[in-house]
Amino acid sequence: MGLVVQKYGGSSVADAEGIKRVAKRIVDAKKSGHRVVVVVSAMGDTTDELIDLAQQVSPIPAGREFDMLLTAGERISMALLAMAIKNLGHEAQSFTGSQAGVITDSVHNKARIIDVTPGRIRTALDEGNIAIVAGFQGVSQDKKDITTLGRGGSDTTAVALAAALEAEVCEIYTDVDGVFTADPRVVKKARKINRISFEDMLELASSGSKVLLHRCVEYARRYNIPIHVRSSFSGLPGTWVSNEPQGNQPMEQAIISGVAHDTSEAKVTVVGVPDKPGEAATIFRAIADAQINIDMVVQNVSAASTGLTDISFTLPKTEGRKAIQALEQTKEAIGFESLRYDDQIAKISLVGAGMKTNPGVTAGFFEALANAGVNIELISTSEIRISVVTRADDVGEAVRAVHSAFGLDSESDEAVVYGGTGR
Amino acid sequence: MGLVVQKYGGSSVADAEGIKRVAKRIVDAKKSGHRVVVVVSAMGDTTDELIDLAQQVSPIPAGREFDMLLTAGERISMALLAMAIKNLGHEAQSFTGSQAGVITDSVHNKARIIDVTPGRIRTALDEGNIAIVAGFQGVSQDKKDITTLGRGGSDTTAVALAAALEAEVCEIYTDVDGVFTADPRVVKKARKINRISFEDMLELASSGSKVLLHRCVEYARRYNIPIHVRSSFSGLPGTWVSNEPQGNQPMEQAIISGVAHDTSEAKVTVVGVPDKPGEAATIFRAIADAQINIDMVVQNVSAASTGLTDISFTLPKTEGRKAIQALEQTKEAIGFESLRYDDQIAKISLVGAGMKTNPGVTAGFFEALANAGVNIELISTSEIRISVVTRADDVGEAVRAVHSAFGLDSESDEAVVYGGTGR
Repeated sequence: MGLVVQKYGGSSVADAEGIKRVAKRIVDAKKSGHRVVVVVSAMGDTTDELIDLAQQVSPIPAGREFDMLLTAGERISMALLAMAIKNLGHEAQSFTGSQAGVITDSVHNKARIIDVTPGRIRTALDEGNIAIVAGFQGVSQDKKDITTLGRGGSDTTAVALAAALEAEVCEIYTDVDGVFTADPRVVKKARKINRISFEDMLELASSGSKVLLHRCVEYARRYNIPIHVRSSFSGLPGTWVSNEPQGNQPMEQAIISGVAHDTSEAKVTVVGVPDKPGEAATIFRAIADAQINIDMVVQNVSAASTGLTDISFTLPKTEGRKAIQALEQTKEAIGFESLRYDDQIAKISLVGAGMKTNPGVTAGFFEALANAGVNIELISTSEIRISVVTRADDVGEAVRAVHSAFGLDSESDEAVVYGGTGR
Repeated sequence: MGLVVQKYGGSSVADAEGIKRVAKRIVDAKKSGHRVVVVVSAMGDTTDELIDLAQQVSPIPAGREFDMLLTAGERISMALLAMAIKNLGHEAQSFTGSQAGVITDSVHNKARIIDVTPGRIRTALDEGNIAIVAGFQGVSQDKKDITTLGRGGSDTTAVALAAALEAEVCEIYTDVDGVFTADPRVVKKARKINRISFEDMLELASSGSKVLLHRCVEYARRYNIPIHVRSSFSGLPGTWVSNEPQGNQPMEQAIISGVAHDTSEAKVTVVGVPDKPGEAATIFRAIADAQINIDMVVQNVSAASTGLTDISFTLPKTEGRKAIQALEQTKEAIGFESLRYDDQIAKISLVGAGMKTNPGVTAGFFEALANAGVNIELISTSEIRISVVTRADDVGEAVRAVHSAFGLDSESDEAVVYGGTGR
């Protein structure tokens, strides 16, 4: 039996009962012969409560102090979890991110991991202990200040530790049974995916699936750490994310993993951009300088009569105002006609391997949307994904139609194979 | 202007408003030209809430993990305080006990400070910052584990930092105006003490005065750091504790500092102890082995007819059961007759310099109690203190009678001089 890293989210340790339930599960893994490292998030709403307090004392809390504040949350949950495990008769020691050797850069609130040097964790394991590590936090390499890793930070801590410790698997425990073929709140017939490749999981994550974040999957792929996403409330197996083949499917067939949607984005259209070299660069340099991450970018051919084109892109709604301001300031330099801002959009994505070489998939996707009466506003594709932008009101209808059209609905028991039929 | 260390207790930073009020006071000190180091406790009831959580997951929480848990409290308050100061336009940085260089032994939950190496604090000050330090916590010298300092730990952190940084003064901010001649809840006419010596403050602290704990005063005396105890709610000067003379009193007169009382103790009497060498040693070795701190010890001459004596001692009520068990186990070895346990007692102490050489003080103390109809059960004296044990029910009556008899009541404006009259 090897080493397993388990990660428990805030909803799994929301109260004393949750902590005791998680402790029991950890002890079970230890009893079965594993060496166990546990990464834990802050209890339930703790982080939100701390953020609220910060805003009461300062409208724009400073990064260093904000990180110092937030890391108190994991400190509480990890110490309680270690106590609960000891209470079951097993040895456990808790470690802060710093003690666990999670070394980061100095970008407070969204630091990136530079290195993991888990010497103290190894010692704890060698002494027969269960090691409990605070997720979401590290220590900066240059200033030795406490940092936090930003959204999805605890999952990333778990994967990074699994990589550094050469774990067999990184188990991500959450409040759902795994990754689904679509959001079960939108598509009642969504099925749990048993196995999925890193690549497909990356596309699902960046297309709106919230179970695993892109960053953590990317890390796992780089170090080839299998992730097992599963529920801390049930004993059921969940979804395995790895680089192993997905079932025994014939090569070169498209295997549809699922349908993701995202209503957190807005669309900006820069209207009437002169169709000459350097214009797009000027636009997106302005956006980048404002520290805004964008998602889809679409530019169509320009109208021959005017020599002008339109460039559209999507970005988080929360960044909308900043983007518009940044673009207004470059209006003269670029010479565009106007800006359009639309935050009533949804992005719907179909993800699956082999899609590009199976033209029927794209056609089937658009047909399904057409049959459901859903208008397509933007289209963007990758090797294993097709995304469209539609009206936000249409999102449920659109996702259900696509899910059904690709045979993902739960009447079928097996993973869906699609392709080779020319449809 | 020199360096000042300010310490704020949990009641001063109980909520966002309190934190903002404290931030303003700190900024005022900085504006007046001081270099400022601030030690802060956990907000209001945070520590109690964390203890409650710990007990929900484990009836006897492990020391190391318990310390990890509790230190989350100061982490929250110090980060918020630094943010609030920055919001007022001044630079502040928060530091954990470990970052501030508070090095302790490895006795979790009640670690003792071994060394203070405040290199990072000095750097922060040199850069013009206000340094905020978590009270109550440190890092163990050998294992690099997080420790807590136990009761009064934040005051001790403040004094220790003041000593290491050679501060002009250590200001202890609390929710009362200073040290009083008696507990104002019991004696309405109690007066604030303007100046008091380390020695008198030590005796008051060990006799039940709760404003400053013995440990912190002892540390301050050893390194000769003046303490200024004052309210964080008012701008009034409080009580100065130092080794300077108390006012312009003639030498060799008794100067009564105040009357302290303590109802947190119980009395154990070992009845019928053979009056021969080694018996008392056996009794108190048994108590010490059970890790129990005792307070007063009284043994009277033995009755000539039996050759047996009684030994009484007082100890915290919380340790009562443990002490009785420890003594029961040594009953055969010692050969005592029986044990008596009484937790309905109060200890009343009169503290003041020069008492021993002014016999009238002792007599006046006992007369005041007699006139109030209060029976004395045990007596114990030191160079600058007389303590008696009475019934718990009598405590208010007794303290008021003594306070009044020694002219401490607030009609008189000046510190009370007593002695030389033979009374």
